[in-house]
Amino acid sequence: MHEVLERFIKENLPAIEGKLNSLLTCENIPKTLQSSMVYSVNAGGKRIRPLLVLATLEDLGATSKDALTVACAVELIHTYSLIHDDLPCMDDDDFRRGKPTNHRMYGEAVAVLAGDALHTLAFNSLTKLTDTSAEDSLHIMQKLSDASGANGMVGGQMLDLEGESKSLSLTELEKVHVNKTGALLLFCVEAGAILAGLNQEKITQLKNYAWNIGLAFQIKDDILDITSTTEELGKTVGSDNSSHKSTYPSLLGLPTAGERLAEYHQIAKESLAFLGKEQLLLGLFADYIVDRKS
Amino acid sequence: MHEVLERFIKENLPAIEGKLNSLLTCENIPKTLQSSMVYSVNAGGKRIRPLLVLATLEDLGATSKDALTVACAVELIHTYSLIHDDLPCMDDDDFRRGKPTNHRMYGEAVAVLAGDALHTLAFNSLTKLTDTSAEDSLHIMQKLSDASGANGMVGGQMLDLEGESKSLSLTELEKVHVNKTGALLLFCVEAGAILAGLNQEKITQLKNYAWNIGLAFQIKDDILDITSTTEELGKTVGSDNSSHKSTYPSLLGLPTAGERLAEYHQIAKESLAFLGKEQLLLGLFADYIVDRKS
Repeated sequence: MHEVLERFIKENLPAIEGKLNSLLTCENIPKTLQSSMVYSVNAGGKRIRPLLVLATLEDLGATSKDALTVACAVELIHTYSLIHDDLPCMDDDDFRRGKPTNHRMYGEAVAVLAGDALHTLAFNSLTKLTDTSAEDSLHIMQKLSDASGANGMVGGQMLDLEGESKSLSLTELEKVHVNKTGALLLFCVEAGAILAGLNQEKITQLKNYAWNIGLAFQIKDDILDITSTTEELGKTVGSDNSSHKSTYPSLLGLPTAGERLAEYHQIAKESLAFLGKEQLLLGLFADYIVDRKS
Repeated sequence: MHEVLERFIKENLPAIEGKLNSLLTCENIPKTLQSSMVYSVNAGGKRIRPLLVLATLEDLGATSKDALTVACAVELIHTYSLIHDDLPCMDDDDFRRGKPTNHRMYGEAVAVLAGDALHTLAFNSLTKLTDTSAEDSLHIMQKLSDASGANGMVGGQMLDLEGESKSLSLTELEKVHVNKTGALLLFCVEAGAILAGLNQEKITQLKNYAWNIGLAFQIKDDILDITSTTEELGKTVGSDNSSHKSTYPSLLGLPTAGERLAEYHQIAKESLAFLGKEQLLLGLFADYIVDRKS
């Protein structure tokens, strides 16, 4: 990872962790439920989504006292979706990031409820922004709910489940990922841009960047599932292959999947040209997504 | 049911049904997911929550073009919670309102996702109000997320699950119900009052009404579980008793539970006195909650 990005992450992670945990602090929550929510929020996520929100503001030379809250709201949505996706009736995963999944620790009922509660908390936290107009707050909530609902993330998980038992075309596979992973990454960049007061034309450019890193992110995940070790990845490798799931490598072969990854990476970087700066954090993020080992 | 309330319901139900189904109409939703969402939304609910929102506005002599959307947002939250509560890992119910539960029709994975998608849709629909200030929209979303999250409905379901395996005190039982059912009913009345532009002092009075009908509603549910037939109720009766769950009748005995019901009913009606009108819809609602057979 480039040292500039590394420094940015090191500088911002403590505030993200602090904000996430302060959002989870409320004395009226039943103890087991709260413990289960805290467990998954603190289960070692890389905080890519919150960092993307903050990096967007930084690259745009803007600040907002609400940036952290918006950044953490996305992480809460992401965390709830992981808890539900890991359930036995869904992907049935016992481990995530090297730790037992929520339902392995707390049982399925609590896991369902912890996911639900984090889901609600994400929207609740966005109703309390202090440095953002009510109009912009609503706009951000609309974008987050578009990105995470039936025609976004949840829809993508549905398509992903349906795709497990059949061969998908490349177009169908892309649709799964654009919905399941891409929409939320796109939201991160868009939300940062809204907080920064960017005009619509430039927001569209940034969305193009985000769309491309979203797909690059997924292709890289698919490649790592084949080339990485369980230890590096913190979850079982080769699970896609053993379940005959359609992936970029299975549809295109590993070398062509790698080329496709490079293409998306390049388009993402080119989409940032309008910012007229060298060494943008968002550009370094695109590099990191492609180069990461887990 | 009083004929005035009956007429009000008959007049408003078609608009509620229409709005709910228009909120579910989006061509980008995967077909099975959409079908599962529509199934539960149309599974024969009495629409008590949306009707309460509309009745509050009517009793306050106010109108809002957004009343239906707000009314339906609560119903979406209520519906998502029923789908998740019915799951095998939660209450494990096969039937609700005389129909197979969502997971019996679509499988558990789709049921989890349909619940999640309805949850997001509720908040999404509230970001698009057209006749309400952005500030009031945010206020309504904040109240809805407070009422439905970890220190509201979801927290109540958690307490309810924990209470299944032990004896609860009356105070603990009340806390379960205030959170699990009461908070959302209270939201309905409060949201109607916000849309009507009511001042805070009067909103507090209305919330007192709602708090009391919420508990009355639950005591009546517990009583019906003992005194009703499976046919009348559309779900298995006596399930509370067979699982040794704490209920008002089990803690107080059936006659005292009935007296408690009457007390809450009376306080609810008295809380409406400030409106200075006879035959309020909210008063008739309180009567209906106490008199209903299912």
